Amino acid sequence: MNFHGIIPYLVSPIDQSTGSVKTGVLTQLVNDLIAKGVHGLSPLGSTGEVHYLSWSQKSEIVRTVVEAAQGKVPVIPGVTAYTPAEAIEQINHYEKLGIDGVVIILNTYFTLSKKEMLDFFKKVARSVSCPIVLYNNPKFSSVDLTPDIVIELAQEPNISYFKDATGNTGRLLSIMNQAGDQIKIFSASAHIPVFVMQLGGVGWMAGPACIFPEQSVHLYNLAAQGRWEEALKSQKQLWSANEIFQKYNLAACIKAGLEIQGYDVGDPIPPLKGLDKNAIDVIKDVLKSAGL
Amino acid sequence: MNFHGIIPYLVSPIDQSTGSVKTGVLTQLVNDLIAKGVHGLSPLGSTGEVHYLSWSQKSEIVRTVVEAAQGKVPVIPGVTAYTPAEAIEQINHYEKLGIDGVVIILNTYFTLSKKEMLDFFKKVARSVSCPIVLYNNPKFSSVDLTPDIVIELAQEPNISYFKDATGNTGRLLSIMNQAGDQIKIFSASAHIPVFVMQLGGVGWMAGPACIFPEQSVHLYNLAAQGRWEEALKSQKQLWSANEIFQKYNLAACIKAGLEIQGYDVGDPIPPLKGLDKNAIDVIKDVLKSAGL
Amino acid sequence: MNFHGIIPYLVSPIDQSTGSVKTGVLTQLVNDLIAKGVHGLSPLGSTGEVHYLSWSQKSEIVRTVVEAAQGKVPVIPGVTAYTPAEAIEQINHYEKLGIDGVVIILNTYFTLSKKEMLDFFKKVARSVSCPIVLYNNPKFSSVDLTPDIVIELAQEPNISYFKDATGNTGRLLSIMNQAGDQIKIFSASAHIPVFVMQLGGVGWMAGPACIFPEQSVHLYNLAAQGRWEEALKSQKQLWSANEIFQKYNLAACIKAGLEIQGYDVGDPIPPLKGLDKNAIDVIKDVLKSAGL
Amino acid sequence: MNFHGIIPYLVSPIDQSTGSVKTGVLTQLVNDLIAKGVHGLSPLGSTGEVHYLSWSQKSEIVRTVVEAAQGKVPVIPGVTAYTPAEAIEQINHYEKLGIDGVVIILNTYFTLSKKEMLDFFKKVARSVSCPIVLYNNPKFSSVDLTPDIVIELAQEPNISYFKDATGNTGRLLSIMNQAGDQIKIFSASAHIPVFVMQLGGVGWMAGPACIFPEQSVHLYNLAAQGRWEEALKSQKQLWSANEIFQKYNLAACIKAGLEIQGYDVGDPIPPLKGLDKNAIDVIKDVLKSAGL
Repeated sequence: MNFHGIIPYLVSPIDQSTGSVKTGVLTQLVNDLIAKGVHGLSPLGSTGEVHYLSWSQKSEIVRTVVEAAQGKVPVIPGVTAYTPAEAIEQINHYEKLGIDGVVIILNTYFTLSKKEMLDFFKKVARSVSCPIVLYNNPKFSSVDLTPDIVIELAQEPNISYFKDATGNTGRLLSIMNQAGDQIKIFSASAHIPVFVMQLGGVGWMAGPACIFPEQSVHLYNLAAQGRWEEALKSQKQLWSANEIFQKYNLAACIKAGLEIQGYDVGDPIPPLKGLDKNAIDVIKDVLKSAGL
Repeated sequence: MNFHGIIPYLVSPIDQSTGSVKTGVLTQLVNDLIAKGVHGLSPLGSTGEVHYLSWSQKSEIVRTVVEAAQGKVPVIPGVTAYTPAEAIEQINHYEKLGIDGVVIILNTYFTLSKKEMLDFFKKVARSVSCPIVLYNNPKFSSVDLTPDIVIELAQEPNISYFKDATGNTGRLLSIMNQAGDQIKIFSASAHIPVFVMQLGGVGWMAGPACIFPEQSVHLYNLAAQGRWEEALKSQKQLWSANEIFQKYNLAACIKAGLEIQGYDVGDPIPPLKGLDKNAIDVIKDVLKSAGL
Repeated sequence: MNFHGIIPYLVSPIDQSTGSVKTGVLTQLVNDLIAKGVHGLSPLGSTGEVHYLSWSQKSEIVRTVVEAAQGKVPVIPGVTAYTPAEAIEQINHYEKLGIDGVVIILNTYFTLSKKEMLDFFKKVARSVSCPIVLYNNPKFSSVDLTPDIVIELAQEPNISYFKDATGNTGRLLSIMNQAGDQIKIFSASAHIPVFVMQLGGVGWMAGPACIFPEQSVHLYNLAAQGRWEEALKSQKQLWSANEIFQKYNLAACIKAGLEIQGYDVGDPIPPLKGLDKNAIDVIKDVLKSAGL
Repeated sequence: MNFHGIIPYLVSPIDQSTGSVKTGVLTQLVNDLIAKGVHGLSPLGSTGEVHYLSWSQKSEIVRTVVEAAQGKVPVIPGVTAYTPAEAIEQINHYEKLGIDGVVIILNTYFTLSKKEMLDFFKKVARSVSCPIVLYNNPKFSSVDLTPDIVIELAQEPNISYFKDATGNTGRLLSIMNQAGDQIKIFSASAHIPVFVMQLGGVGWMAGPACIFPEQSVHLYNLAAQGRWEEALKSQKQLWSANEIFQKYNLAACIKAGLEIQGYDVGDPIPPLKGLDKNAIDVIKDVLKSAGL
């Protein structure tokens, strides 16, 4: 399967009193996003508060999304793990549920050497049968997948995609110059998808695409057709909405935005808190000025 | 129960081929440490590679340590969690296994506000019935329990102890000046236990005490008797051994040291790697020059 | 005067035994760069090791560059200062020497509040008569000129340009969305000039343009003509050379590269050291594979 | 000369309208501090806002302090420099003015290698004839003088003292275990002088001793007599005042405290700002509760 295009990170709607997954609202969100043209779905990312979910919640979310998607678009859940064993166990379970690939976030407490990072990913890649998206976000973790590591991991048949949240296009250029045939690149941040696609990137995986699916797909289509100046104009507009989210916890923003749009996704998972009233008003203004 | 004195963080001996806990060697280590005079035992700390263990491994380790300790000294396992629910579930289970208290390490992916940190600990403290040791190690996590947070949490009846790995005695002074009656302090780092006890601290929780139990107990006894100059001399000697460990992953050092002493605790848990031969030779020299 | 295009940061050739400026080689370099089409010259930047120069060296370098440039292109020296008074004194002196503008790098020891940063730049801007380029490089200083600060400073008539070394295009988008009419943007890093120009940027100020002037001017011309795909191909090629420089001290790399090209610019200023033989061989390979 | 005891970092009283040094108030402060028993004086430290002073201000301050001290206690000004040449020039000048030693703060813009740091200090130490105090404060600079560097530099005859602002007593232990005969240690932070003296330290160099000279001398005397418990009680009291200063810019606090005590030292040097009224009230309360 060929992952590309706009792949929203889904929020995790949880009933806080019971801890159960709100499968109805999640199914509705999946249906609507597919109807609006997204090219894939990624539950259990950082926007999905994956670190704050129990194993049964994670399993139920993947099951729900796979069922709702009905094979129309690939489902690529996030997998966070400290050990290869933990990652493999999760992926094997999700494979049985019918997922099409995974995004791996390596957790650690002790600082890992380059060799320890390489061994983690190689061990996992050789133990599963689905494509893997490497995810790098050193701002929020103690792990930094530098270009030399990504280039070496690109040799693994199952490691097929890379998503980098650093926003450093020099890193992407280095990887593409040396391993452009082995690994495909996704954009992370909302200020940069057009540039990443100009460099040869294949799409954009992002939380805000839950709220702006049509505009995100529009931007992707312009870029895919090489209509760069229109795509840049679209990116500039989307950024004026997205930059607001940087002030707050991203998961809280996306949940608030979806609530405003009528999806009863609820609050973030404790101890994470929902936005206060002032922040919600700011988000409302963002949605309004973005024509939503 | 009154926690005090030398409380070693136990390593987690795992059979890497099967993933099962080596209960025999763990029991032996517990017996020997108690025989050498330690005042408590803390499995599942960072030295115990707690982040890298599965739930069944954690449960089996606590069960084994509680059984081996036979009530002679308190057992105070580490609990790491992203959510209150996860922490409470673990603690409730450990309480049934017979533990005497817990050391809580708050994990997070998103940066937490002060209010989010306070709510996490208050919720947990009010949902369990054993004493809690707060653990602060901002170097290895995204959480920093500053003195104002600790002082507020000290008002919770179940939050009774604080262990700070920053080595900043100014923080300890601030806490003691304002909440010295509500919370007791443990030293973390090996260069500082005597000073912490001079400030009114009640003991030292540390990984290296697995390897140096008698020397650690000796240091504590000197300090408890106010024989400060002898205690400082002892601290100076122990530091010349402990400072070596700073160059390497701490869990790998303690496992290597115990292997040298004849405990078949095995390697760190993948992806963490064991020390290489050169480093093991350095550790051997350290043990030899420390008279072990 | 309208600053735009390729503006190399000049190295500072110093005779280490006497401390005097090698005015001959500096004049030659200026002549050659102008002949190769650069659009301006910036002595005393970080590539020029400005922090490591004495006042008489700085003055002599500016005098030499202004004389050599003969008004053919603007000369825009760097000014580093802890206080407004220090900055103003330098700028007033350079203005008498005939410079066309300055790039200001704010030094600090104590962390500055937003108000302290704003007051510094406003005080300086209102006390001089030449255009100012704001320079932001938080990696190497304790100062971070965030978009809100730049947007406020853009209201000052003399603050006309911004150069950001963070490589974060989201920041540039935010500034352009809100102050695009008041302030013009220069690209810093070699992996990003085409993107910055697509966003409306006016050029590229960079140390490596000392070594690659023709290729840099070529890239700029392609971008200025909206020939984006050719410009991107050019950027990709230049990056494969520039990424090597990231491994070493930038000033040492540019001095080594110029030495290889026959300019007797000498070693970095102590305590900074020149590259070792291995690194020089790597730089030679870079120049060779770049067709130089 | 044998540096020891309480050595206050002096503030730099500057007339903001003219830029001239207020020599009268500086002389008065020096006289009063000597009368209250301090064992040395250090102008031009970070408390003295040394980075924000012009060369003529620095020279005038050293001249004033040396004259006022009349040889009763040693004068040990701070020297901040990016290059050995700059440091040597300053020290040679100060030596002619009659100083007894210097505290060196190494500035840098580029990250320095260990060898570059060693070469800087060795070059300076071999080019001057007065004792040198190494100063380490990685929080505010890009330089970290780790124990291995200090231990190597301790072999230089002129490098005789080390002051470490990290508050990490493990570092001090490592240095003393390996170079205790070659280099003497001063305490920096107010929460730790008694511990540093227990480890063999010779005194305390600190900004707050400008405001609390008698209490600081009292603490030192208790520690010098081995009356540790009384010394610790004194340290605890002093800390409850000093911890407040951590919330604000230190130089601004000390200047505000001296103003409250009747010394017309004025505001910090722009762009640094003075404390606001609320903060000044907090400082007043601190002084009152400390019995001043």
